[in-house]
Amino acid sequence: MNNQIPSKLQDLNPKAAHLCLGIENFITSKLSVSLKKRTILLALSGGVDSTSLLIILSCLAKKNNFSLQAAHFNHQLRPEAPLEEMHVRKLCEYLSIPLRTSSQNVAQYASQHKLGIEEAARLLRYSFLKTVKNDIGADWIVTGHHANDLAEDIVMRLIRGTGWPALGGMEGKCNNRRILRPLLATSKETLIRFAQGCSLTWCEDTSNKDQNFLRNRVRSQVIPLLCKENPAFLDAITSLWELAQIDTDHWKATIEQHLEKTDLATPKLLKEDLKTMSKATRLRVYKAILDSMGNGQPLQHNLLALDAAWQANVGGKTVQFPGNKIATIRKGAICFSYR
Amino acid sequence: MNNQIPSKLQDLNPKAAHLCLGIENFITSKLSVSLKKRTILLALSGGVDSTSLLIILSCLAKKNNFSLQAAHFNHQLRPEAPLEEMHVRKLCEYLSIPLRTSSQNVAQYASQHKLGIEEAARLLRYSFLKTVKNDIGADWIVTGHHANDLAEDIVMRLIRGTGWPALGGMEGKCNNRRILRPLLATSKETLIRFAQGCSLTWCEDTSNKDQNFLRNRVRSQVIPLLCKENPAFLDAITSLWELAQIDTDHWKATIEQHLEKTDLATPKLLKEDLKTMSKATRLRVYKAILDSMGNGQPLQHNLLALDAAWQANVGGKTVQFPGNKIATIRKGAICFSYR
Repeated sequence: MNNQIPSKLQDLNPKAAHLCLGIENFITSKLSVSLKKRTILLALSGGVDSTSLLIILSCLAKKNNFSLQAAHFNHQLRPEAPLEEMHVRKLCEYLSIPLRTSSQNVAQYASQHKLGIEEAARLLRYSFLKTVKNDIGADWIVTGHHANDLAEDIVMRLIRGTGWPALGGMEGKCNNRRILRPLLATSKETLIRFAQGCSLTWCEDTSNKDQNFLRNRVRSQVIPLLCKENPAFLDAITSLWELAQIDTDHWKATIEQHLEKTDLATPKLLKEDLKTMSKATRLRVYKAILDSMGNGQPLQHNLLALDAAWQANVGGKTVQFPGNKIATIRKGAICFSYR
Repeated sequence: MNNQIPSKLQDLNPKAAHLCLGIENFITSKLSVSLKKRTILLALSGGVDSTSLLIILSCLAKKNNFSLQAAHFNHQLRPEAPLEEMHVRKLCEYLSIPLRTSSQNVAQYASQHKLGIEEAARLLRYSFLKTVKNDIGADWIVTGHHANDLAEDIVMRLIRGTGWPALGGMEGKCNNRRILRPLLATSKETLIRFAQGCSLTWCEDTSNKDQNFLRNRVRSQVIPLLCKENPAFLDAITSLWELAQIDTDHWKATIEQHLEKTDLATPKLLKEDLKTMSKATRLRVYKAILDSMGNGQPLQHNLLALDAAWQANVGGKTVQFPGNKIATIRKGAICFSYR
């Protein structure tokens, strides 16, 4: 292992130090998180993104007084996986960062549970991360998702027809799952330059080129066209993401305020309350109630049909939703139940 | 001129009639407009979109009791322009639809005013349409923009970094400019099938293939990739558009409610009022005030800086915006003025 790998801010060249402080600022002001005295668990694949993040966080750990540990999941999908695990192991040893590893046959799990490889990989990886997080009492799981990942995510959501604010991409901070993504405003190119400047080595995931995966087709075919039209496209993406995070907070608070009065065991929206809401609010409140009722995603089409029925005050009218859920108009109120 | 061109609903084959009624429903329920006893002016280029719309509207005019006129603008940009004008003239004559035409040298105007060709064309065309609309006392200008145009528009806005709800694409109904776009949920493919089914002829605009224009590159390079990933991509786009229209109404009403109390000659946001707003609301209220102060678009970056200064209650702090506009924090209030 190269013994010039930096592990504190003073070891870094000015550009690399600047990036580190930018990430620190992103965590504080964009994610509104203080890591002081916290324990954080880095999901470390060994690629350039999480390897760079390992160095960045280990430099910030001293300054910000938090404890850093890492976890590596071997998906057993590629012949080079054991080499990657070894690389990650040596790096963490060198930096004296505690590392947990796990290895599982993702392909087998996927075929057993009739899942796509990517979905199965994500499920098993996050389940492992959650276990380690609980074992070590970590406050946050930190992932290396960067601005290019975010751009791919947003384009995939656009393709699928995701509404707003979800169209704005993955969360930077997920309070429920305790996930932080501090690199969302940093491009992959910047991370590569950082890694090179720090004389890091990293593993290239060859499956990232596999054109059988939607994400890889979006990465190799769509994103380059968009970046060609606007060289600052990734900045545009992070701006959109930031606005979406702000709107997510707005809608969460608005929904909570309206659901406060609602008993979620027998959800009902009262006429007086519905009348104070805009259509934009009503649609999101309907969706929140239906989501709270279990599996089955309501489609925008159905939500609009419910709203049209409510607006027309069609007493007794019932609108059906996936997951056997129904909503019925009764005297200007909307009652939600199961079929 | 083919004398089988339909001009009333009964002349149409079942599929074409179904499309017509779908457009009627779109106008009523998605655009919330009644055309009864109105005069509408169709912007008729002679392409498949506006030619189909001419037939659709002339069929609906009888049923819905509105009066239809057309306007054609010759941009003098292509050698085939006079032929297109003649084609449009014959068609309107055959259908007994009053037509106004105008011809202007767009290229010359663009170079004189240092504008892009597309921008100059749009400016001159809309200025002509507005004049005709006023001359004939029309209530609405109707354009042939369809779902493919909308998809291109949304992708271009994504590339440029447009926020929400503007990312959701062009308005279906613009009350200020009195424009309606009844084909936004209809694909170009559907319009071509309609035109073929009605034995229509139309003009192909060869400049639509010119790869010097961003729109044409998006159309020929980006959109096909997205449609390949999701064959229902255009439906996803119109769903997104519909949500954006609903959110536009929501934010317009919210902004109006907060600006009611504000004197727009010396705009000031009071501490008590700011405290009741979410960050999502505050950012949009700032933008609305700055927009009302004249030219110069505020950047999201500046709006966020203003909000951070307000949140930190940095008394005396001034944030600058394009167009010589400034905002200053004073005792928890925000005062807007010019430098």
